[in-house]
Amino acid sequence: MYNIGIDLGGTNIAAAIVAKDGTIIRKDSTPTLGDRDDKLIIKDMAMLALKLIKEEGLSLDDIHSIGVGSPGTPDPEKGLIVYANNLNFKNTPIRDEIRKYIDKPVYIGNDANVAALGEYECGTGVDYKDLVAVTLGTGVGGGIIIDGKIIGGSFNGGAELGHVSIDFNGIQCNCGRKGCWEQYSSATALIRDAKEAAAKNKDSKLNDLVDGDLSKMNAKIPFDAAQAGDKVAGEVIDNYIKHLAVGIVNVINIFQPEIIVLGGGVSAQGDNLINPLRKEIIDEIYGGEPAFKTKVQVAKLGNDAGIIGAAMLYRAYE
Amino acid sequence: MYNIGIDLGGTNIAAAIVAKDGTIIRKDSTPTLGDRDDKLIIKDMAMLALKLIKEEGLSLDDIHSIGVGSPGTPDPEKGLIVYANNLNFKNTPIRDEIRKYIDKPVYIGNDANVAALGEYECGTGVDYKDLVAVTLGTGVGGGIIIDGKIIGGSFNGGAELGHVSIDFNGIQCNCGRKGCWEQYSSATALIRDAKEAAAKNKDSKLNDLVDGDLSKMNAKIPFDAAQAGDKVAGEVIDNYIKHLAVGIVNVINIFQPEIIVLGGGVSAQGDNLINPLRKEIIDEIYGGEPAFKTKVQVAKLGNDAGIIGAAMLYRAYE
Repeated sequence: MYNIGIDLGGTNIAAAIVAKDGTIIRKDSTPTLGDRDDKLIIKDMAMLALKLIKEEGLSLDDIHSIGVGSPGTPDPEKGLIVYANNLNFKNTPIRDEIRKYIDKPVYIGNDANVAALGEYECGTGVDYKDLVAVTLGTGVGGGIIIDGKIIGGSFNGGAELGHVSIDFNGIQCNCGRKGCWEQYSSATALIRDAKEAAAKNKDSKLNDLVDGDLSKMNAKIPFDAAQAGDKVAGEVIDNYIKHLAVGIVNVINIFQPEIIVLGGGVSAQGDNLINPLRKEIIDEIYGGEPAFKTKVQVAKLGNDAGIIGAAMLYRAYE
Repeated sequence: MYNIGIDLGGTNIAAAIVAKDGTIIRKDSTPTLGDRDDKLIIKDMAMLALKLIKEEGLSLDDIHSIGVGSPGTPDPEKGLIVYANNLNFKNTPIRDEIRKYIDKPVYIGNDANVAALGEYECGTGVDYKDLVAVTLGTGVGGGIIIDGKIIGGSFNGGAELGHVSIDFNGIQCNCGRKGCWEQYSSATALIRDAKEAAAKNKDSKLNDLVDGDLSKMNAKIPFDAAQAGDKVAGEVIDNYIKHLAVGIVNVINIFQPEIIVLGGGVSAQGDNLINPLRKEIIDEIYGGEPAFKTKVQVAKLGNDAGIIGAAMLYRAYE
C-alpha cells in the first residue's frame, strides 16, 4: 500500500506516490494558478494524483490515503482550508472536494506542521518519539510533533514559533509584535544584518562576495565570509547564532523534545551552524551540558519534507 | 470509587480522598521533615493515605489509584522521583515504595503539571479540551495539558514557561539566562518593582500601605494602591500587565489552547488582573480581537489544585 502526498504551494501543486518508508515512488507537479476558483485547484490536485497512479501502473486499491499540506489555516478535523494566503480558499471543503474524484481517506495539515511530520516519520526525527521542527527561511516556522501527534493549536493557528517574542522592546515584526524570534533568526534577518554590516564596513569580504551589489546578499555569504576569516562577517554570524540559541533554549524549556530539527535555507550550513549553536545552547541552558539532552540536528528531507509529511498524515490521525 | 491525591511539599505532605468529580471527601496533612531518608517520607505518605481511608470508613476496594504531585523532576513512566529540591530524593522509586504499603496503581507527576491537571479535570478548565496553566507566584510556573495528556517534556523537565526569555538582554535570572518571563511576571517581580517604585516616590500610597516598611510589600498592595488612584502604583501594575501579556501571547502563538488558566498569588486579583490583561493581549495578538480565541481566566481550585490533580493523574495515564 502507498499513500499520496500533495504539497499545495502558491506557485505549484506537487504530488507524489510515497511508500510507507517515505520513499518517493513517483512525483510530478502542476502550476497552482492560485487566482482560480478553489474547486478547480482542488480538481487539479486530484487529477495529478490519479495521473501518478496510472503512470505507475497502480490502481486505487494500492492507495491507502491522500494527505495534503496547505499554506494558511487548515482545519484537519473538519477537512477544511479555513483560509490560505495568496489563494482564494475560504472554508474550502478540501476533503469532500478531493473525494469527489478519489474515494479515499483525505487528511490535511498546515504545511509547516506537515513538513515536521515528514522529518518525524521519515527524516532526521525517525528514531525519536517527539520532535520540534524549526524552519529558518523567509520567516521562522515551527512544527511540533509529540508522540506522533501534531500539536497545532486548538484553533489550528498554533506552533508559530517564529512569533515568540524574545525581546519585548526589540525589532518590530510585521505581525504587530516587537522582538519576534523570526526578526533575529530567519534567513531574511541574517541577510538584513549581513547587508548592514557590509554597508558599514567597506573592506569586509561580504562586499567582495556580492561583487559590491548588496542586493545579491544571501544567507550563505556571511557564513562563507566568516569561514574565510572575515571579522565583520564573523560578528554577524556570532550574533545570529546567539539569538538562534535564545529561541532554541525557549523551545527546550517548554517542550524538552528528544530532538529539534532545523530546516530551511540556513540549515544547509550543517555543522557550521550546529556546532557553534550547541555551544551557545550549553551556555544558556539551566544545568549546562549535562542538562542538554535534546538533540539538535539539521533536517534531512529538504523540499520533499512537505510531500512526504503529507503522505504520512494518516499516521497522525488514524 | 475514589482516588487518593497526595501533594508532596517541602514542608508538608497533604493527602485527600477525592471523588471522581474532584470533591475532596477527607483531607489531612503531616510534616514532610524533608531531611529524612526518602523511604521514611514515602512511608508517611502511604500511612497518611491509609489513615484517611480508615477514618472515612472505606476499604482499599473503594480506592482506584494513588497519585502524587512532587516538586522537582519525577519520571512518570518509571515511577521515580529523579531529583527533588530540598528533599533527599534521587532516583527514588516512589511508585514501588508506596506499593509496599498500598497495592494500587500509583501515578506521579511534577507539582506544576499536576496542578494544571487539577484545573483541567475539575477546575476552570473542565469544559475545555486543552489548557495551559500559568502560576504567578514565587516564580512563574507552567503546566500544559493537551487532549487530557500532560505535555511535560521527554526528559520530564519541560513546561518551564517561566524560563522562556522575553528579553535576551533583560534582567538576570537565577537559571543563568537573561530576561526570563518570571523576572517580569512572578509575584516576586511585582513585589520587587513595587518596592523600587515606593522607594523612589516617597509620596506614593505604596509607602502608606506598608506603614513605611518596604519589607511588608506583597503582590496585593500595588493593585490596591493603583485602584485607590495612586499613579506610581498604577504604572507598576500597567508595566506588570504589559509584560504578563508578552508571555501570554507567546503561549498563545505556540499552543493556541482553548484556555489559559492563571493561578498563584497574583491571580487572586481576578478581574482587576484579567480585564486589563485581555486588552494588552488584544493589542499584541496578530489579527487583534477576532483572532483572540483563547479564554484567559483565573484558577478555581486554589491550593487544592495540587491534591485534586494528583488524584486525577490516573486519567492522564490510563
